[in-house]
Order: sequence, then structure tokens, then C-alpha cells
Amino acid sequence: MSTTSYAGNRERIVGIAAELFARNGYHGTGVAELSKAAGLGRGALYHYIGSKETLLYEISKTQVDRMNAHAETLLGSGLETEDLLRGMAKGLLRNIAEHRSEWAVFFREYTALTGENRDRVVAARERYEGYWRQALDRGVADGVLRPVPRLLVKGILGMLNYTYLWFEPDGEVGTDELADAFLDALLDGIRQG
Amino acid sequence: MSTTSYAGNRERIVGIAAELFARNGYHGTGVAELSKAAGLGRGALYHYIGSKETLLYEISKTQVDRMNAHAETLLGSGLETEDLLRGMAKGLLRNIAEHRSEWAVFFREYTALTGENRDRVVAARERYEGYWRQALDRGVADGVLRPVPRLLVKGILGMLNYTYLWFEPDGEVGTDELADAFLDALLDGIRQG
Repeated sequence: MSTTSYAGNRERIVGIAAELFARNGYHGTGVAELSKAAGLGRGALYHYIGSKETLLYEISKTQVDRMNAHAETLLGSGLETEDLLRGMAKGLLRNIAEHRSEWAVFFREYTALTGENRDRVVAARERYEGYWRQALDRGVADGVLRPVPRLLVKGILGMLNYTYLWFEPDGEVGTDELADAFLDALLDGIRQG
Repeated sequence: MSTTSYAGNRERIVGIAAELFARNGYHGTGVAELSKAAGLGRGALYHYIGSKETLLYEISKTQVDRMNAHAETLLGSGLETEDLLRGMAKGLLRNIAEHRSEWAVFFREYTALTGENRDRVVAARERYEGYWRQALDRGVADGVLRPVPRLLVKGILGMLNYTYLWFEPDGEVGTDELADAFLDALLDGIRQG
């Protein structure tokens, strides 16, 4: 069995688990059900994954890591504040729209993670939040943004993250347009000038 | 047994269930565990509640109904747009801070509701969203707000609802202050004027 097929199989199993966990809950999904959906015996499933918690960890960590890599690229690219914020928002909304099951599982179930798994996911989340803070701080330093309370970052992330619950990928409004609408409101306010 | 003690017991059981569901998941909490935590036999538990799903329904519906009643009062009180929006945000953040387990269970687990239970909770949620839309529409009609995309309501609710995940009731910032900080950003934007 080649490395590619090992990694490919692993990714496939994580995807199947994300859908099952999103539908029936992490605690509501048994290893037997996972084996059946993946078309693998328990031994083979264990070979690829190790434990149900590893699946939850992979589901959660993979997307947050991607968002961190995306934010790092944008922060390092010399974009101006407004483009930086809009780019970060678009990256997140696109990823959520493409991986709704994964994000639903992450938001609903990450508290079921234990020990190091939980610590690593929480640390990755905090890193992502830190990148948003950096982007805002840079805007303040450049005189583009007014100083804002630290907790506003949580509000912005709530605005964006919450899309996992309601965004319709085939609806009238696309992720980029939505990100821009949110950023328009956030940058310039909704009060009549 | 008086009516009061029936209602009181019911409320107590719903509160216990909210904490257990928040900690171990809805699917991860058994009726035996609920009976034990409530100090009641299965028969008595059934007398007060009927089924585990009824508990999930009560946990979810009670808080959304309270928020609807709160929004109706404010919308009917002739407040100006800005005070109306700030009042609605404060009411929601206060309720979330006081009932974090209930909101966590609602956001994570309401998809486990079935049939009429689910329909009623979804309808109550949509009514609440409708009240926010009304408040914004009123502001636009009064010339206080600029016209905003319909989906912004979901962004505002995301900002506020997401606090169930991170708000520290004993932290430095209180719910009213936080609601005002969010509304400041939303009304006037974060761009340096």
C-alpha cells in the first residue's frame, strides 16, 4: 500500500466521520457505524485512525490549520488593512462553505476532545484569533482604523463563524459577496451618514 | 403535590439536563444518568418530562421564547432605533450569560430535535430574527440607518450568539458594556473617520 493511498484513505475516513458526526453527534456515532460507512473492518479503521477521538481531532484541527496558513500568507503579503481584513474574511467564509460538516462538528463537539488533542486545537484557534488581532492592530497603527476593544475580534469571528449554521452554498449570495457585506458594515457602520 | 411544585420540579430537571447535555452531549447523556442527577426514579422523571427529547425541546424553546418576549416589549415601547438595537443586544447577551449551558445545548444540539419539536424551535428562532429585521427596517424608514443587506441580521446574531462560547461572566467586561462595544462598531464602523 503506497503512502498516497494511506493518506488518501485517511482523508476519506475523516470526511465520512465529519458527515456522520455532523448528522448524529460525536457521542451518537459508534465505531461500528464508522467502520460500516467507510467500508472497512475495525482493524483497518484502527490502522488508519487509531480512535474515534483522533477523528474528531483531525476534523477540527485540519480546517483551523488551513485558516492559520491562509492568514499567515495574507499577513505576510503587504496588503493594505482593508484588503487584508476582506481577504481574511473571504478565506474563512469560503472554507466554512466548502467544509460545513467539519465546521459544524468542530463548533459543536470540540469540547469532547481531551488532553493534548484539546490543548492543540484550542491553541490553533487562539493563534487564528491572534492573526485577526494583528490585522486590526496594524490598521490602527497605520491610522486606517480607530482603536477598538480587544473583544471585538470575538464579535467579528462570531459574525463569520456563525455562517456554518445558515449559509446556503447554492443561494443567491456567494461567500465573497457576504464577506464584503459584513466588512462594509463593520468598516463604515450602518448609521446613515 | 401542588402545581407549583410540579412546575418547580420540572424547571429543576430541565436545568440539570441542560448542564449534563452541555457537558456530555445530548446523545452522550442517558436517561439513567438524568434520573440519578435529578434524584428521581425513571417513573417520576417520566411524570415530569416524558422523554429526553422533551428536555432538549424545553431547554431550547424556553430561552428563545424569552428573547422573543423581550424583543416584542422593546419593539412596542416606542424606543428610538439606536436604543432599540442596543436594548435588544443587551437583553440577548444578558440571557446568554445567565443561561450558558442552555444556549450551548441549543446551538449544538437543536438539530437532534425531530418533527413538531424541531419545527416549533426553528419557527421561534425565525421569529426572533424577524424582530431584528423589523428593528433595522424601522431604522432605515426613520432615516437613522442606511439600507443594509438582509443577511446582515445573521451576522449581527452571529456576533451576539457566539458569546455563549467565550463570554466570562466574571471577567472584566460585563454584558451591557460588550453589547455597547459591538453596537458602537456596527453603527459607526471601525474605520478612522
